[in-house]
Amino acid sequence: MRTIDTLLCCRWVIPVRPRGQILKEHAIAIDGGRIVGVLPVAQAQREFSARETVTLPQHVVTPGLVNAHTHAAMSLLRGVGDDMPLSRWLGERIWPLEAALACEQFVYDGTRLAALEMLRGGQTTCSDMYFFPEAAARALREVGMRAVVGIVAIEFPTAYATDADDYLRKGLATRDALRDDPLVSFTLAPHAPYTVADATLARIAVLAEELDLPVHIHVHETAQEIEDSVRQYGLRPLARLDRLGLVTERLLAVHAVHLEEAEVALLAARGATAVHCPSSNLKLASGIARVAAFSAHRVNLALGTDGAASNNRLDLLEEMRLAALLAKGASGDASALPASAVLEAATLGGARALGLAQRIGSIEVGKEADLVAFDLGAVETQPCFDPLSHLVYACGREQVSDVWVGGRRVVRTRQAIDLSGAPLAGAILAPVAAWQNRIGQLLGACDHGHRAQPAAAPVSSTDSRSGAGHLR
Amino acid sequence: MRTIDTLLCCRWVIPVRPRGQILKEHAIAIDGGRIVGVLPVAQAQREFSARETVTLPQHVVTPGLVNAHTHAAMSLLRGVGDDMPLSRWLGERIWPLEAALACEQFVYDGTRLAALEMLRGGQTTCSDMYFFPEAAARALREVGMRAVVGIVAIEFPTAYATDADDYLRKGLATRDALRDDPLVSFTLAPHAPYTVADATLARIAVLAEELDLPVHIHVHETAQEIEDSVRQYGLRPLARLDRLGLVTERLLAVHAVHLEEAEVALLAARGATAVHCPSSNLKLASGIARVAAFSAHRVNLALGTDGAASNNRLDLLEEMRLAALLAKGASGDASALPASAVLEAATLGGARALGLAQRIGSIEVGKEADLVAFDLGAVETQPCFDPLSHLVYACGREQVSDVWVGGRRVVRTRQAIDLSGAPLAGAILAPVAAWQNRIGQLLGACDHGHRAQPAAAPVSSTDSRSGAGHLR
Repeated sequence: MRTIDTLLCCRWVIPVRPRGQILKEHAIAIDGGRIVGVLPVAQAQREFSARETVTLPQHVVTPGLVNAHTHAAMSLLRGVGDDMPLSRWLGERIWPLEAALACEQFVYDGTRLAALEMLRGGQTTCSDMYFFPEAAARALREVGMRAVVGIVAIEFPTAYATDADDYLRKGLATRDALRDDPLVSFTLAPHAPYTVADATLARIAVLAEELDLPVHIHVHETAQEIEDSVRQYGLRPLARLDRLGLVTERLLAVHAVHLEEAEVALLAARGATAVHCPSSNLKLASGIARVAAFSAHRVNLALGTDGAASNNRLDLLEEMRLAALLAKGASGDASALPASAVLEAATLGGARALGLAQRIGSIEVGKEADLVAFDLGAVETQPCFDPLSHLVYACGREQVSDVWVGGRRVVRTRQAIDLSGAPLAGAILAPVAAWQNRIGQLLGACDHGHRAQPAAAPVSSTDSRSGAGHLR
Repeated sequence: MRTIDTLLCCRWVIPVRPRGQILKEHAIAIDGGRIVGVLPVAQAQREFSARETVTLPQHVVTPGLVNAHTHAAMSLLRGVGDDMPLSRWLGERIWPLEAALACEQFVYDGTRLAALEMLRGGQTTCSDMYFFPEAAARALREVGMRAVVGIVAIEFPTAYATDADDYLRKGLATRDALRDDPLVSFTLAPHAPYTVADATLARIAVLAEELDLPVHIHVHETAQEIEDSVRQYGLRPLARLDRLGLVTERLLAVHAVHLEEAEVALLAARGATAVHCPSSNLKLASGIARVAAFSAHRVNLALGTDGAASNNRLDLLEEMRLAALLAKGASGDASALPASAVLEAATLGGARALGLAQRIGSIEVGKEADLVAFDLGAVETQPCFDPLSHLVYACGREQVSDVWVGGRRVVRTRQAIDLSGAPLAGAILAPVAAWQNRIGQLLGACDHGHRAQPAAAPVSSTDSRSGAGHLR
């Protein structure tokens, strides 16, 4: 018998590869942070002697969910501006608040809050794009999450950096500082074609090749940005990125709402990824991405929550359900984006996009043990004829019971825990209360017996002419 | 000091009327099942002596949610057919299964399961449409939920009734039997224009007036049924209902996905209700209802989950969020269906539709105490600048902590309880396991190490030519 760290004995395992497979009464053997066996429980108990055995009698275990696009620190701005057109939402709320608030501590505290929410929702990896990425990486790592940190670039000065070169310099320095951390990796993260100049994008194309990094960028989120690009450059944004050498298998085209058929085909031909963020696209009235067309062209699909200021939850299960429903409703085809394809997008699709498909995204021997157990025993998931259907259509984040990242259990019976097993929530929520007070003051007189209608003055006194340095 | 049954001391109260109002540190005084005061906590503690005081220090309390359209018993068929076009879903799964299964016990057991899920999701009232409505009413009442029971009519024979007259006779007898129950009321529930003949619909129009009952009917769910109606009757279904005298303030037009501008205006002019079921409409690829147009025309809006076979959750919070997001994304207007309007649709809008607006749907003195407390203290709802925003955009059903129906606490800290305070779940889940086995056998060989692909034979051997007696 081989001695291993952990044996998970599961009612069901959905390994994601092969697509749609459901293994009943299977065990996952974990040693040194990696998966060393996926086999029937009875056989596992003969072959392995585990230091810890976890019995999951009414649970389905899947690969950890991969949130391919978020601005984690913006969890501190959850719900500051709803039901507003994009231009007002940015100009009156997000940019002024960020100009007043964004600093290393804001990013650290907000990212810790976000990480806790993401882990409790079954996300083991997130691809983040925000200022002060070193603070974000530190926060994600401390909470136990796998971090894909954006080396941000934008042409506007902020408290973090002065110009695009400065952003890249600082981001690359963060990469150098953290490059030995096995749970941290990086993307190059130019904000968007409309906020980053050709010279910067061209430099990023070179850096991506040299450093072997994905390129994480907002693309074709709104119809307006496409019109503006045609006026300014004579090209649609994706064509401009292509001319600059950025439409490759490294590209994460975030949002990708407004794409013509030929543009979908181009993404497919180059092996690029569309990162679908359905809640955010609907909430900001950006539109509905053509997910059925992505499937038809075999574009790699990943899912993202976007930031909590435009969602307002960092809940990839919600995005999974919404992606599945919306693909059907928008295409008129009830078989579009079936449950198996949605789960793949939320796991292996994201891992592929981030260059991590050899390490995570499916439950296979040799991969790192990023795993989520969903308890299907509650009223809301009974009866159960098909755990894969329930995962996508019936589960909520409250069904997530336990989460492992690199073999370490980071959520135990719904509670995020530290290395000693102690709950994390108290220490993480304490500074959130202080931020709430500060942001609440900025938002003006809330809670006076009527719906919060923050006064514009305290926040709009900061400079919002240029939308200085927003990253969403 | 006045002695009362219960005093709820709440961080926030959202009474729904007036729309958008948020009361901070307010109490709700309850006596004899009714609301007798809504006032600042300090004042309430001077004015009332309560036999029970419930402190809700980080909670927002709203009126109980009203699920205006469901087929509760179908919770036993949760997830039996996903990712299938409507015709296959009905013909291969739902109709054959219903033909094989639907009986009084199926309805009773399935409705109890549904009621538990709905209560735990903050729903205090549901408007049900299914066979054996007496069994459904009994189940809903035993679990403590307010029941609006459909007096069903359809032209096809089932185990429940032989023809439309028999359905109506049996439904009216159920109404006679239960008419003194203060928690039960009724609708006339002809299934749909395409399954009910003119003569029956005309009789229902008369009955609705005579008995003062709402009329609960699927209308314009798919483009196909409209085409078929034009071919068969030379009229679109809504025009046919109008010719038969059914488009009045009593009408619940369920789904109402495919409406022309003039049809929206007709609903508005007559004071009819559109019952929006966004998850079901997307999942079955029926389309996207024009909710922004409903708002522009001031059509009364209510929300429904539909049955768990086409959703697959009976979660009105999910429908609220989806309705708000979808209205924005589909109309291109991020201010469409703001949070306050969504909450109104999920409470007072449903109450109006069901003829219950004098009794429930808002937190006002004199109304019955149907209330839900949402705990906003968790990571997922922090920070909180606006509890109304969080309700719609950030909350999940797991934030529902306590529920009262007619002043009786039916959910206590997430657990549905009986009159003695004992948990209900065990007794309700036990028969579900038996049904799972029986339905699983019908569905064929599941769980053989691959995605469930039920054999068609065992279920399709029953007669599905006529779609006999399905109610969804």
